[in-house]
Amino acid sequence: MSDGRIYNFSAGPSMMPLPVLEKAAAQMLNYEGSGMSVMEMSHRSKYYDDIINGAQDVLRRVLNIPDNYKILFMQGGATMQFSAIPLNLMVTGKADYAITGNFARNAAKEARKFGTVQIAATSEADNFTWIPTQDQLNLDPTADYFYFCANNTIFGTEWHYDPETGNVPLVADMSSNILSKPVDVSKYGLIYAGAQKNMGPAGMAVVIIREDLMGHYRENMPVLLDFALTADKNSMYNTPPTYTIYMMKLVAEWVEQMGGVEAMAKLADKRSSMLYEFLDSSELFKGAAQKASRSRMNVTFRTGDDELDKKFIKESIEAGMTNLKGHRLVGGMRASIYNAMPVEGVEYLIDFMQKFEKNNK
Amino acid sequence: MSDGRIYNFSAGPSMMPLPVLEKAAAQMLNYEGSGMSVMEMSHRSKYYDDIINGAQDVLRRVLNIPDNYKILFMQGGATMQFSAIPLNLMVTGKADYAITGNFARNAAKEARKFGTVQIAATSEADNFTWIPTQDQLNLDPTADYFYFCANNTIFGTEWHYDPETGNVPLVADMSSNILSKPVDVSKYGLIYAGAQKNMGPAGMAVVIIREDLMGHYRENMPVLLDFALTADKNSMYNTPPTYTIYMMKLVAEWVEQMGGVEAMAKLADKRSSMLYEFLDSSELFKGAAQKASRSRMNVTFRTGDDELDKKFIKESIEAGMTNLKGHRLVGGMRASIYNAMPVEGVEYLIDFMQKFEKNNK
Repeated sequence: MSDGRIYNFSAGPSMMPLPVLEKAAAQMLNYEGSGMSVMEMSHRSKYYDDIINGAQDVLRRVLNIPDNYKILFMQGGATMQFSAIPLNLMVTGKADYAITGNFARNAAKEARKFGTVQIAATSEADNFTWIPTQDQLNLDPTADYFYFCANNTIFGTEWHYDPETGNVPLVADMSSNILSKPVDVSKYGLIYAGAQKNMGPAGMAVVIIREDLMGHYRENMPVLLDFALTADKNSMYNTPPTYTIYMMKLVAEWVEQMGGVEAMAKLADKRSSMLYEFLDSSELFKGAAQKASRSRMNVTFRTGDDELDKKFIKESIEAGMTNLKGHRLVGGMRASIYNAMPVEGVEYLIDFMQKFEKNNK
Repeated sequence: MSDGRIYNFSAGPSMMPLPVLEKAAAQMLNYEGSGMSVMEMSHRSKYYDDIINGAQDVLRRVLNIPDNYKILFMQGGATMQFSAIPLNLMVTGKADYAITGNFARNAAKEARKFGTVQIAATSEADNFTWIPTQDQLNLDPTADYFYFCANNTIFGTEWHYDPETGNVPLVADMSSNILSKPVDVSKYGLIYAGAQKNMGPAGMAVVIIREDLMGHYRENMPVLLDFALTADKNSMYNTPPTYTIYMMKLVAEWVEQMGGVEAMAKLADKRSSMLYEFLDSSELFKGAAQKASRSRMNVTFRTGDDELDKKFIKESIEAGMTNLKGHRLVGGMRASIYNAMPVEGVEYLIDFMQKFEKNNK
């Protein structure tokens, strides 16, 4: 890019919309005439009330969140929710988990500390290259909830449907595809997302929870992991990550200004289709995930030759791109193309891949 | 102040050093030629390695932290440590707590979920206006640790000595006075501090822990509360609050450039002495804390007349100061004067108080 910024294909933390960063820089010393930076403000002030409530309001509008759902801002990222969800929602003591990647596996591992985890489906034997269909889910109608990871960052797969689980509450980790498409929140019991991929800086998870699922208090639950208390205190039982919430508000406002999650979905389809179409036409590069399960957010691919992969990554950095190296569990390459990645960034990548292919036949 | 910024006496989040904010604004779109904002960087990148390791290095230098202590960056602020400390350190199941304020009381309440809390001292009956002396501590030589809150933000009191506890590890919440004076870390088992008062933005605690105290794993401990795992993963078991760590690094570097914690201590003494001397000479204002226990960070005072207190707070805002209202548990006024508060800010406040006194005799 001409302004010295680069195309950053990191899986998270990842690119932020440029207008958001520009606004944050402009407001750093003095937020809207307050005489303070947002990070200097008391979280009990009128200024900050407007920010935290405004952040909830814009999320509620953009994701069309029904009134009977609370929006919580909780520290510790998605990983803290691996603990908080079973602690709060394992009421009878068992839950179904679909294991479609590393983070779902880690979530299940953590949940086993607090109850019984039943594996509803797993693609682990195929190194997580696919997402189960509805028919492949082995569901317990008496489970406390059904848990899945809606987009698997490392493996480049995504659930393209909302699982049907009857009366069993659906719990989804949407860390890497939230705000990238419309979601019928009313089908879910709980949706959560670590902020650092598509919403803002690292250090927080947004939890969207149906009110009736809260309040199953456990005696030995760390106080900050209590959903009901967090909701009751409007996410301010203690000092929340005030600046992170402010940045997330700016990102969500940007999404809204750009046309909302419908517009984000169109852009995500465009970016990912361009890249997958090129991969399918290439004689050098191959996609890592099965076609029906491909993610619109994280595109995994490889040449099949480790040395050539290394060369590709090295040369991509020289060409002004970064973080195209795949996760060690998959190898090869990965292009993470979240909301903030310009279409031009993907065009630039494809152009580079075409030249690389020509030069390395 | 002439640049549109105001004197912010908030107890936390609170004022940040202006040069730190200026640097953060300047680096927002492109950190040191990386082509990225710090908040866009992969936490697994070379750039970010330098930031997180640099943050530890500067803290180690500034606080003179011995090599057998680990520095951890943990999400959830000080409140998450209320849970993490008993979960990790209550090995035999009992600990001594000194209750000198609201946060110490909350810490003890949380610790009771995980073991037996013994009250080593409490000033609750006097609304926490004093700090116990060494002689007043009722210590159990077989306790797993002795816990105290080194500075009580709400009540304006501070421990002016390191308690002697023999072989029992000292555990201190230094959220509101860390980096304000030299500390002999070797006397402590664990020191922790929420970042948002004297170190940086909200959303993190810094934990300084003697290595031999780690590793007492509990089966049902949430994974992110495990000190040993956090140390083993260099605070990156999951994505850490990357931007918060960066800001904290800038603040600690500023402390170092200003002459270190020795210089901060001199400034803290100067600021607080000026204010206490005025209070003691005033016929209108009275300090809330007992003299021997007065905090150098949070100065609590009142007129004795609730209506006059309200008038004071209202007029102070009009005069370009903010957050001078005391906490509801104490009433009256509170001036929080951390490292980033210029001496001129305290002079301005005293001048205002003198005028207010003259006008309201």
